[in-house]
Amino acid sequence: MTAIRPSYPTLRIGLAGFGTVGQALAQLLTASGPSAPIHRDVELRITRVANRNVERKRAGWLPGVSWHEDPLALATAADVDAVVELIGGIEKAYEFVKLALANGKHVVTANKALLAAHGDELQAVAAASGASLRAEASVAGGIPLLRVLRESFVSHRLTSISGILNGTSNFILTEMEREGRTYGEALADAQRLGYAEADPTADVGGTDAACKLAIIARIAFGQGVSLGDIRTGGIGQLRPWDFIYGRKLGRTPRQLGLVRQIPGDGLFLSVRTHMVQTDSLFASVAGPSNAVLIQSQDGGDFFFAGAGAGGAATATAVYSDLIELSRCGQRPETPFFGTYEAAPLHRATSKDFVAPFYLRFVVRDRPGILADIARCLSDHHINIDAVLQLPDQHKEAFPFVITIEAVAESQVEDAIRQILAMDFNVEPPLSCPMTP
Amino acid sequence: MTAIRPSYPTLRIGLAGFGTVGQALAQLLTASGPSAPIHRDVELRITRVANRNVERKRAGWLPGVSWHEDPLALATAADVDAVVELIGGIEKAYEFVKLALANGKHVVTANKALLAAHGDELQAVAAASGASLRAEASVAGGIPLLRVLRESFVSHRLTSISGILNGTSNFILTEMEREGRTYGEALADAQRLGYAEADPTADVGGTDAACKLAIIARIAFGQGVSLGDIRTGGIGQLRPWDFIYGRKLGRTPRQLGLVRQIPGDGLFLSVRTHMVQTDSLFASVAGPSNAVLIQSQDGGDFFFAGAGAGGAATATAVYSDLIELSRCGQRPETPFFGTYEAAPLHRATSKDFVAPFYLRFVVRDRPGILADIARCLSDHHINIDAVLQLPDQHKEAFPFVITIEAVAESQVEDAIRQILAMDFNVEPPLSCPMTP
Repeated sequence: MTAIRPSYPTLRIGLAGFGTVGQALAQLLTASGPSAPIHRDVELRITRVANRNVERKRAGWLPGVSWHEDPLALATAADVDAVVELIGGIEKAYEFVKLALANGKHVVTANKALLAAHGDELQAVAAASGASLRAEASVAGGIPLLRVLRESFVSHRLTSISGILNGTSNFILTEMEREGRTYGEALADAQRLGYAEADPTADVGGTDAACKLAIIARIAFGQGVSLGDIRTGGIGQLRPWDFIYGRKLGRTPRQLGLVRQIPGDGLFLSVRTHMVQTDSLFASVAGPSNAVLIQSQDGGDFFFAGAGAGGAATATAVYSDLIELSRCGQRPETPFFGTYEAAPLHRATSKDFVAPFYLRFVVRDRPGILADIARCLSDHHINIDAVLQLPDQHKEAFPFVITIEAVAESQVEDAIRQILAMDFNVEPPLSCPMTP
Repeated sequence: MTAIRPSYPTLRIGLAGFGTVGQALAQLLTASGPSAPIHRDVELRITRVANRNVERKRAGWLPGVSWHEDPLALATAADVDAVVELIGGIEKAYEFVKLALANGKHVVTANKALLAAHGDELQAVAAASGASLRAEASVAGGIPLLRVLRESFVSHRLTSISGILNGTSNFILTEMEREGRTYGEALADAQRLGYAEADPTADVGGTDAACKLAIIARIAFGQGVSLGDIRTGGIGQLRPWDFIYGRKLGRTPRQLGLVRQIPGDGLFLSVRTHMVQTDSLFASVAGPSNAVLIQSQDGGDFFFAGAGAGGAATATAVYSDLIELSRCGQRPETPFFGTYEAAPLHRATSKDFVAPFYLRFVVRDRPGILADIARCLSDHHINIDAVLQLPDQHKEAFPFVITIEAVAESQVEDAIRQILAMDFNVEPPLSCPMTP
């Protein structure tokens, strides 16, 4: 077998955004010798770079490149075949990506918020001009999830996709689990290590994961999903107790995005904390990693895990999109948002979500609380599986746990609403589905 | 967004082999309505089927199909664009695949032994005729490993790939681990459940995994690897003790294929039992599943797990290749065996493989054995980490374990050769690397 020569013309790249990811990408693209990536059949070359304060950013090691303050200059440049959007945010990125696609430039982006908000429109602009939109880096970091959904799992009848989609939240949960930290301490650790931003709301509150889940649902189930369709909750309510009680149940908290097809043409979407089994694959995923479980009727379950964020992981995912674009050449493209428009599924509600639940209460202790709660659960046709309470706790803020058998979540919500009105709660009850 | 219509002509398929996988594939290809797979942009149609005793196999639910005894008829038929090779074995499959490729037919195969033996030659025939060779199902069952190696991880600088590549062995090991079975009992269970063949040698002895590892090494590292390059051992030496001692060490046995780039342009290849940590992702993979860990300089570690065998998993992997072929149209193909021929790497030996080891001895007990072994290890510059022995054991066949600090395996081999010559061994010592 002889060496394979490049079969495609050079792909000329306009890089918008020269921060951590942009610089990591440029380093990969200019690497040579034994340390270079392993493909040999394509040539990728950066011709233009845009960034604010370009004089501060200009990199001497990137030769023959034009530098710009304004990314829009890249979107129309004749010597650019594809642009990489690493600007972030929505408005400016939207203007830039739309202009580039309209001018027939391929676009590679890592911007999940942009795609969740404007993905369908941008795909339509791409289809009209013959350009291609690619965004492997936007979901699950370096894990090639979108590619396998578009290329491999099209042969499956998918039933659900669930995943650890936010590395910051997973870092905080595993710090709480393994180091016994409080939520506040673990969040401060994450900020100190650069895993969480100064304002961590989008990460710990679930919005970031919800944007990714919307993209997954679009590609895997052919459904246009808006953030309002996704029941979204964060991790801020978790306490060290939940890890102690979890361990007694052989479980541990993990923040999961979930899209599940419900019999009767429904689609259930949520981002929230699940109690997973400690010997499960999700429980083995620690730190700022991502992981995804794909379940199908045909081929069983598939699990993918890897780096969820960081300059190198994001840059390699962008790089893989550029290689794909280069290899595609004049081939008709598989549209980014899946290969079909499915019959619409209704948005399932908590009536359709059936699971066993972990319920954690924090109460000001007095006789009769358990009886009151048990009566209320019974009134809502909920069967108690176990009651756990640690000994020697503070009577003024006494945490205990009730696990219940599988039931529609709407019943749990009704019961909890009623319990919340009782006089003993020190903080609102926490309910988490218990997932295999 | 409007519905996407098929953009490609129908791909006409000749299916050679109508057993479990062939029938599962035909069912997927003829499914319609809500139970059909989710792509809508390609049309795949079976025009011919070949199988021995075709009269016994002929399926009434597969309309408009010509049936043949001899697969070679498919390789030259004008109404076949792509053949699927599910014959198995090497000789007949080789003749069939070569003839089909020479006639410009695309080939999709699940046959790892064929590719390990003749892959380079078949790829050359494909390149000459413009046909495409695809074999996603040949490695790691339904996990789209080869696709992500060819398409996503080309942007990485890979350092090692390790994996549970044989579902039969993994089933046996996890039965021993979780049900306390002996090797013989677990093997009998595997045979009863259809996970192991009547002659299980290729599965439990490591050859099946070695064929898959050769394909992985070819695609990921651009190296032509023959089975003789791979240090191959099976699982037959494992005893229930190894799971008990393993648990005391926080470890459990897993049979892993490993290809690792060694500094100084070497490539180390092995198939054998490793002691992995019980909280690792590999330890979470139970039953007849497969799993692969990809390690890279840039993007960190990636882990994939899923169904490793079975009709449905294999059929969906074949199906994904057919969809890819159909979508590719006239696009220049990425050759199956990677996109480049790398500078040759020498085959590293046990001198280059450095790890801590688990050493298990079974001895006829007498005073001074530990001293003899410790002296021998010391003579070979091997540091003992721990000595474990269960109480109250049979003096005539007394198993105990020594763990040693990281050392080149060649030193361990030399020491064990010397220990083996001593008078107390009831069976040969077992040595397993201890892997994170």
